[in-house]
Amino acid sequence: MDNQTLRVNGQRLWSTLMQMAHIGALPHGGSRRLALSAEDKAGRDLLVSWCQQAGCTVTTDAIGNIFARRPGANPNLAAVATGSHLDTQPEGGKFDGVFGVLAGLEVIRTLNDAALETRAPIDLVVWTNEEGARFSPPLTGSGVFVGKYILEDVYSHPTADGTGTVKDDLARIGYLGNDTPGIRSLNCFIEAHIEQGPILETTGTHIGVVTQVQGIRWFEVLVTGQNAHAGTVPMTMRKDALVAAAQMIVALNALASGEDHATRLTIGALSVTPNSGSTIPGAVRFNIDLRHPSAATLSKLATALRQTAAQVARDRAVETTISEIMNVPPISFDPDILAVLRASTTTLGLTQQDILSGAGHDAMNIASRIPSAMIFIPCRGGVSHNESEYASPQDVTNGADVLLQALLRRAGAF
Amino acid sequence: MDNQTLRVNGQRLWSTLMQMAHIGALPHGGSRRLALSAEDKAGRDLLVSWCQQAGCTVTTDAIGNIFARRPGANPNLAAVATGSHLDTQPEGGKFDGVFGVLAGLEVIRTLNDAALETRAPIDLVVWTNEEGARFSPPLTGSGVFVGKYILEDVYSHPTADGTGTVKDDLARIGYLGNDTPGIRSLNCFIEAHIEQGPILETTGTHIGVVTQVQGIRWFEVLVTGQNAHAGTVPMTMRKDALVAAAQMIVALNALASGEDHATRLTIGALSVTPNSGSTIPGAVRFNIDLRHPSAATLSKLATALRQTAAQVARDRAVETTISEIMNVPPISFDPDILAVLRASTTTLGLTQQDILSGAGHDAMNIASRIPSAMIFIPCRGGVSHNESEYASPQDVTNGADVLLQALLRRAGAF
Repeated sequence: MDNQTLRVNGQRLWSTLMQMAHIGALPHGGSRRLALSAEDKAGRDLLVSWCQQAGCTVTTDAIGNIFARRPGANPNLAAVATGSHLDTQPEGGKFDGVFGVLAGLEVIRTLNDAALETRAPIDLVVWTNEEGARFSPPLTGSGVFVGKYILEDVYSHPTADGTGTVKDDLARIGYLGNDTPGIRSLNCFIEAHIEQGPILETTGTHIGVVTQVQGIRWFEVLVTGQNAHAGTVPMTMRKDALVAAAQMIVALNALASGEDHATRLTIGALSVTPNSGSTIPGAVRFNIDLRHPSAATLSKLATALRQTAAQVARDRAVETTISEIMNVPPISFDPDILAVLRASTTTLGLTQQDILSGAGHDAMNIASRIPSAMIFIPCRGGVSHNESEYASPQDVTNGADVLLQALLRRAGAF
Repeated sequence: MDNQTLRVNGQRLWSTLMQMAHIGALPHGGSRRLALSAEDKAGRDLLVSWCQQAGCTVTTDAIGNIFARRPGANPNLAAVATGSHLDTQPEGGKFDGVFGVLAGLEVIRTLNDAALETRAPIDLVVWTNEEGARFSPPLTGSGVFVGKYILEDVYSHPTADGTGTVKDDLARIGYLGNDTPGIRSLNCFIEAHIEQGPILETTGTHIGVVTQVQGIRWFEVLVTGQNAHAGTVPMTMRKDALVAAAQMIVALNALASGEDHATRLTIGALSVTPNSGSTIPGAVRFNIDLRHPSAATLSKLATALRQTAAQVARDRAVETTISEIMNVPPISFDPDILAVLRASTTTLGLTQQDILSGAGHDAMNIASRIPSAMIFIPCRGGVSHNESEYASPQDVTNGADVLLQALLRRAGAF
C-alpha cells in the first residue's frame, strides 16, 4: 500500500467532533468547557477513553497535560507529537482547539485501520488551559512544559470562579499527574487549528501553512481630563477625556491601517469614568492590542502610537499615560516541519498559502524547545470565540489528511 | 431703618453651611446625603430644628417637601417662597442645593434680628430628591408639587439600594406628611444656587441672573459591527464598532462646537461589548446629552446628529440606531421676578450678568405654575457633583444678600 494514498475517515472525525461538542453544549451551537471545570473533566475523560480504545497508553503530567502514545517500531525514538486543547472560551465554538486534538485522534484511528506501524511513536497531546478564560495565564500547560512558567507558581493561581487554586482543581478533576512537565522527549510538535480569521475563506485556499506567530504588545492608556456637569460647561472650556480618547482611537486605527497588511491594532476594552449620561467624562482607560510578525515594526509602531496619543492629548488639553503591560515577541516556526507540511499538502492536491497566526497557540510555546509548526483550515466568516464558529466537514477532513501525511513523513513510515 | 441697607450675617451663614456638611461628611470635604436616607433625615431634622428656633411653623407635604413659614403681617397673602434641596449626589459637595436652603434660612434669621415684618409670609422650602441619585425621577418633590408626576406613581418607585419603596422610606424617616402637594398657594419662588459651571468665575461676575433653563434631549446610540479576534482579522476586513463610535463622538463634538455658545453636547456614558482586550468590539452603546435654550435649535441639532452618525456608520460598514429617550423643553423664567433680582443686585453694588442654566433645578418645575426665577453664585473651577465643590464665603454672602433684598421687595417690606 502506498502511504501517500492513505486518507482519514472524514465522517468518523466529524461525528467525533459533534460528540465532544455535546459536553458543555450551549443553546446556540457552541460549547463551554472552561479549563479544569466539570465540563473539561468530562471532555478529557471522553478523549482518554477514545485513546485507550485506540490502543494508546495515556499519561498525565503534573500540570494536567495529557499524552496518549501510539507506539512506534523503535521505542527509543522521540515521539512525533500533535494535538491542541479541549478547553473553550465561556461562549466558545465546536472547533477552536478541539479540531486539532480530534484530528490527531483520527490520524491514530486511521493508522490502526491500516495496521500501519510508524518507526517513531506518535503522541497525541492535550495542553491544559490554552484559553485562560477561568484562570491565568493562558497557554498554561504548554508554558509549564517548556519552562516558561514555574509549576509551583501556576499551582497557586486562584480560579476566576473562586472554587480553589489550580492545583486543587487539577486534583479534583483527576488530572494531577506524576510526570514532570517537559521531561518527555518529543521529535517535533505539529498543531492543526481553525484559522480564526477570514483570510483562507476569502482567498479560497484549503490549507494555511503557518510560518510565524505574530508578536503581541499590549498597552494600557489612561486619559485624564476633568469631569464636570454636562449642562453647565461650554464646549470650549471642557477637558473631555472621552472626546480625546475617541480622537486617539480614530488616529491609532488610521496609523495601523497605513502600515503593511500584517499589522493589527485593536482597542477592545474601554471604560469611562464616571460613566454618567449627564457628566463630562473625567477619565477614560483603554487597551491597545498591537500585533505584527516583525519585532522591528512592532517597535516602530509602539513609538508612533505613543506620539499619536501624546499629540491628541496636547490638542485636547488632557493628560495621558501609556503603560506597556505585555510584550510577546514574534515566533518563527521550524523550516523543516514547514517543508513537511507543504509537501504533504501538495501530495493531497490541496491548495495552500503561507499565513501568519495573529492569535497565540500552544505551538508558539512548544516552538521554543522543540521543532514545531502549524496548519490552519478555513472557518466560516473568520468567526471564532463565538458559538457560531464553523468549519466545513470537507475542510476538517482536509486538515486531518495533511496532518496524517505530515506525521507519517516525520515518524518514518516511508 | 432703610431696608436696602439690610445685610445677612455672612459668618453665621458660612458656619451653618459647615454644620450641615458634617452630616454625611466624606473624606475629601464633600457630603453624601442621598434622598430619604438616614443622612437625609439627619439633615432635614437639623434644618427643621433651626427653622423652629427661628420662629417658623414647619409642615411637610405628602411627598416630603418641607415648608417653614415665617409669618407676614397679612396672613391672607400667598407666601413668597425660596429654597432648594438638601439631598446630594453620592459624592456631592457642600453647596449644591444646600446653599439655596441655608441662604433662605439666613434671610429669615436676618429679618428676625432686624425685627422686620414683611406683608406676605416667607416660606423656606426643601424639595425632596432633587438629585435622583437614590431613586427616580430626579426633581421628585417639585415635580409632584406642580402635578408633573403622580404622587401614587412616585410612592411605588423602588430605591436603588433596594431598601423599599419611596413611600416606605418617607414614612421611615418621618417625612410622610399630610398636606396634598401643590395645595399650598405661593406668590413666587426664588431659588439661589451655585452655578455648577465656570462662566461667572471666568468673567469675574458676582451674580448670574438665570433667565432660562436649557432644554435637554437625550439620545441612545447603538453601533453594531462584528466582534472578532484581534489577531486574525486584517484592518481592512473589520467591522469595528468602537472605531466607528469613536469617529461619531469626534464628529458630534465638532458639530456642537460649531454651533452657538449656548450649545452643549456630551457623551457621558459608553459601554463596549464584549469589552475584551483581544476582541474587536462588536457593539458599542453610548448616550448623547444635548442642551440648548432654543427648541428650534435643539430640533435642528437632533436632525444633524442623526445624519452625522448615519454617515459615519456608512463609512465604517457598521449599523447604527438612535433612539430619543428624553425631551425636556427649554423653560423661561418670570420677567417680573427677573426684574426684582436685577434691581436687588444693583442695589447691593454687585456685578451681574444674565446666564442660562444648563442643569435642571427645582425652580424649572415650579415655574410651570408659579412665577419663578433663580440666581447663581460663582463656584471654583465650575466644579460640582464633586467633593471639591467650593464657593467662597464672600460669594455665598453676596448671594444671600441678593436673596434677602429680592424677598423683601416681593414680600412687601418697602
